[in-house]
Amino acid sequence: MTTFPQKLLDGYQGFLHSTYRKRSDAYRELAAAGQRPEALVIACCDSRAAPEIIFDSGPGEIFVLRNVANLVPPYNAEGRYRSSVASIEFSVVNLGVRHIVVMGHGRCGGVAAALDERRESLDKGDAIGHWISLLDPAIDAVGRGEGHDPVRHVHIDHPEDSHIHPGQDPRQTAVECMSVRQSIENLRTFPYISEREADGRLTLHGAWFDISEGVLWVYDPDEGQFEPALGTSGLRVAD
Amino acid sequence: MTTFPQKLLDGYQGFLHSTYRKRSDAYRELAAAGQRPEALVIACCDSRAAPEIIFDSGPGEIFVLRNVANLVPPYNAEGRYRSSVASIEFSVVNLGVRHIVVMGHGRCGGVAAALDERRESLDKGDAIGHWISLLDPAIDAVGRGEGHDPVRHVHIDHPEDSHIHPGQDPRQTAVECMSVRQSIENLRTFPYISEREADGRLTLHGAWFDISEGVLWVYDPDEGQFEPALGTSGLRVAD
Amino acid sequence: MTTFPQKLLDGYQGFLHSTYRKRSDAYRELAAAGQRPEALVIACCDSRAAPEIIFDSGPGEIFVLRNVANLVPPYNAEGRYRSSVASIEFSVVNLGVRHIVVMGHGRCGGVAAALDERRESLDKGDAIGHWISLLDPAIDAVGRGEGHDPVRHVHIDHPEDSHIHPGQDPRQTAVECMSVRQSIENLRTFPYISEREADGRLTLHGAWFDISEGVLWVYDPDEGQFEPALGTSGLRVAD
Amino acid sequence: MTTFPQKLLDGYQGFLHSTYRKRSDAYRELAAAGQRPEALVIACCDSRAAPEIIFDSGPGEIFVLRNVANLVPPYNAEGRYRSSVASIEFSVVNLGVRHIVVMGHGRCGGVAAALDERRESLDKGDAIGHWISLLDPAIDAVGRGEGHDPVRHVHIDHPEDSHIHPGQDPRQTAVECMSVRQSIENLRTFPYISEREADGRLTLHGAWFDISEGVLWVYDPDEGQFEPALGTSGLRVAD
Repeated sequence: MTTFPQKLLDGYQGFLHSTYRKRSDAYRELAAAGQRPEALVIACCDSRAAPEIIFDSGPGEIFVLRNVANLVPPYNAEGRYRSSVASIEFSVVNLGVRHIVVMGHGRCGGVAAALDERRESLDKGDAIGHWISLLDPAIDAVGRGEGHDPVRHVHIDHPEDSHIHPGQDPRQTAVECMSVRQSIENLRTFPYISEREADGRLTLHGAWFDISEGVLWVYDPDEGQFEPALGTSGLRVAD
Repeated sequence: MTTFPQKLLDGYQGFLHSTYRKRSDAYRELAAAGQRPEALVIACCDSRAAPEIIFDSGPGEIFVLRNVANLVPPYNAEGRYRSSVASIEFSVVNLGVRHIVVMGHGRCGGVAAALDERRESLDKGDAIGHWISLLDPAIDAVGRGEGHDPVRHVHIDHPEDSHIHPGQDPRQTAVECMSVRQSIENLRTFPYISEREADGRLTLHGAWFDISEGVLWVYDPDEGQFEPALGTSGLRVAD
Repeated sequence: MTTFPQKLLDGYQGFLHSTYRKRSDAYRELAAAGQRPEALVIACCDSRAAPEIIFDSGPGEIFVLRNVANLVPPYNAEGRYRSSVASIEFSVVNLGVRHIVVMGHGRCGGVAAALDERRESLDKGDAIGHWISLLDPAIDAVGRGEGHDPVRHVHIDHPEDSHIHPGQDPRQTAVECMSVRQSIENLRTFPYISEREADGRLTLHGAWFDISEGVLWVYDPDEGQFEPALGTSGLRVAD
Repeated sequence: MTTFPQKLLDGYQGFLHSTYRKRSDAYRELAAAGQRPEALVIACCDSRAAPEIIFDSGPGEIFVLRNVANLVPPYNAEGRYRSSVASIEFSVVNLGVRHIVVMGHGRCGGVAAALDERRESLDKGDAIGHWISLLDPAIDAVGRGEGHDPVRHVHIDHPEDSHIHPGQDPRQTAVECMSVRQSIENLRTFPYISEREADGRLTLHGAWFDISEGVLWVYDPDEGQFEPALGTSGLRVAD
């Protein structure tokens, strides 16, 4: 008698009888041939920001690393068991992905914790306290007025909301976006990444998903800003 | 002009116009109220084993950590930026999840790499080499004949395959399953986990997904074995 | 500038970017090769009882006739333009379907109208008044006590409802089910159907979908009753 | 022991465990409150052209009449049991839909049968022979050169096909589209429809779905032509 969560078992039956039933050939082929994903997506553990849902991905399409606040540590950070760095290395060196997407999202609990004034009192011995200290460079940059407006503030033609970030703290949004940029910079400190980016085998991308309105923003390195992935004309979504 | 992968943009349009359109209320409520996932799922980065797909989960349901080979390091492992440990801590201490599911899967590239005889020649300075050394206890146990048969070998009523692991190396399957058990043991070395497990606030679970046939196995701690989540009668899936 | 309903256009984008994107190969093959559906499903126009949704069908799988109250007139009914009879004929004679499923459903507006005492005042010149008079044999049979209990009244292990028909009029349910049986009898008056049923090329089936709890009942001709399609053990659905 | 088609039972499990599980609240509310669909969609029985799939519709959204070749007979056609006319009447008079969409589609077997030269030999006593004679006005109009080009022939930016109708007979496409226009004209012969259209309570629309490329065309009454629903810029669909 298993005590496995019933909700997950119920959902698994949905997968088995619907998704798997319709795509069993794809699963069997992928099992036999092995995976060849084109992209690594680095996303937050947040229950509202699953990359396979947001990108409507089928089996075999994306290799996904998820940690709190979708952070990439610098390459030379110490530690024997570097789970995120190891996952990045496996995807680039062993699987040869051609794209890496760092995807942040709105209302991130990890970013909120890092911005919490009571954070000083966090026990620095805790793993989460150390981990979110990786956000410090982004917080500092936003504090200095850099990247003060990393998300282009367009008005959205939306019935209820005239602004893209209803109910969201602009400073937190700025840190979320700036941190994506910082993680991309950190990825460039990995020798095997900078090398592949230089010769065109690998491209780095940033994105930010707003959770509430379902809008995806992508980073435009030329402008140094995030812009709606579908352009502003694509933002309206009828209810 | 963005160079964002077109395939991901196409998929995002599918999400926006189908999933989000149908569930925009849920997304907005989750954005306003915050997430309250009941379970943390620790899964592999593998492109064929996304927990939200396998458990057919909606937004807000599961908090998901993904690293290569779905491994949990021991609590006292050194290192400043412990991405997996920090994510586990955040889900248990900050979000108060009631379940942790460690889900392994068949044909895992990380496990295959750890079993590769040429592994000796891997540069131990690499992050992945160190990371998959976390599999050593499971490999050793399987080598000693412990957990020799962690998956109950039932015959499946399936048109093409009379066995649950067609084309899969039995030793690798054994290591994949034994490693899930090892990760559960490692979770119990986390003080805030053992404490919550003792007083009933938290339950630990193991699972293994076979990729090819879509069958989910769950760990039965009483039997020390994995069994089909739906029982053997539920295994047949018509094409 | 089109005035096409925006809601349908929004939904079409969901189809195009999600379902079609994932299954474009199947659509192209079906376009090139032509359809070969195995079953004709005769269902109601009701907005809550679409066969492709209830049977989770992909493109090419079922040929679907829909009219108010999922009725089949007798073969020899007069009229030059017999839309339902023509559709049945096309599926059986031209396409060679191997199954015909007549699927009724709970809370059917057509059946409710036929049972309405004010029905006498309906202008018999109206098409709907004549059409639902096809329900008279089923209403008479239920009135005579035949098929008084066409649905086996099992108790369901359901959190909120101890009965399968919460809030539904038992007499209407009885007519809905008896009418499915009547339509199957009417189908047997079609020469090309009785001939094919006799030599095993075609099988006739009845079903009833309860709308509220999502439970599908299928007709068991041996017992003369409808029973849960998955058996009573499969009825529980966690929320 | 039921002989109900196993494929439909398997699909029903997919519905029950996935779609219904996620939307049980909507189903229960719709069961309790009754349906209030905004549109009637008149579509073909074809297994590749289900309106709920093409418009990604949820429960309660569209009322659907399906017959071979999505035809509407003239109001005053004889016959006691007029299934299509009765269904239209029920949706307009009883349910008060605000839109009627007549949706044709490519490679329609009913239209192909009507254009078949051997049609003369069809037994006119058959229901299908009479039914598809409703296509005669459309065939005649196309023969006279009217509506010679009811679909605007744009070139599509598509990797494989430079034309919207690969492998399709242009004459059949023209009849399919012309017939949608004819059915709209026939709807206007229904007194309760012309009355409601005149005072703005009801709007009539035409559409055509190409099956192969997934493109939906909508009828523009001002231009007398069908145009891509999303404009030509929306036609590209990545693999």
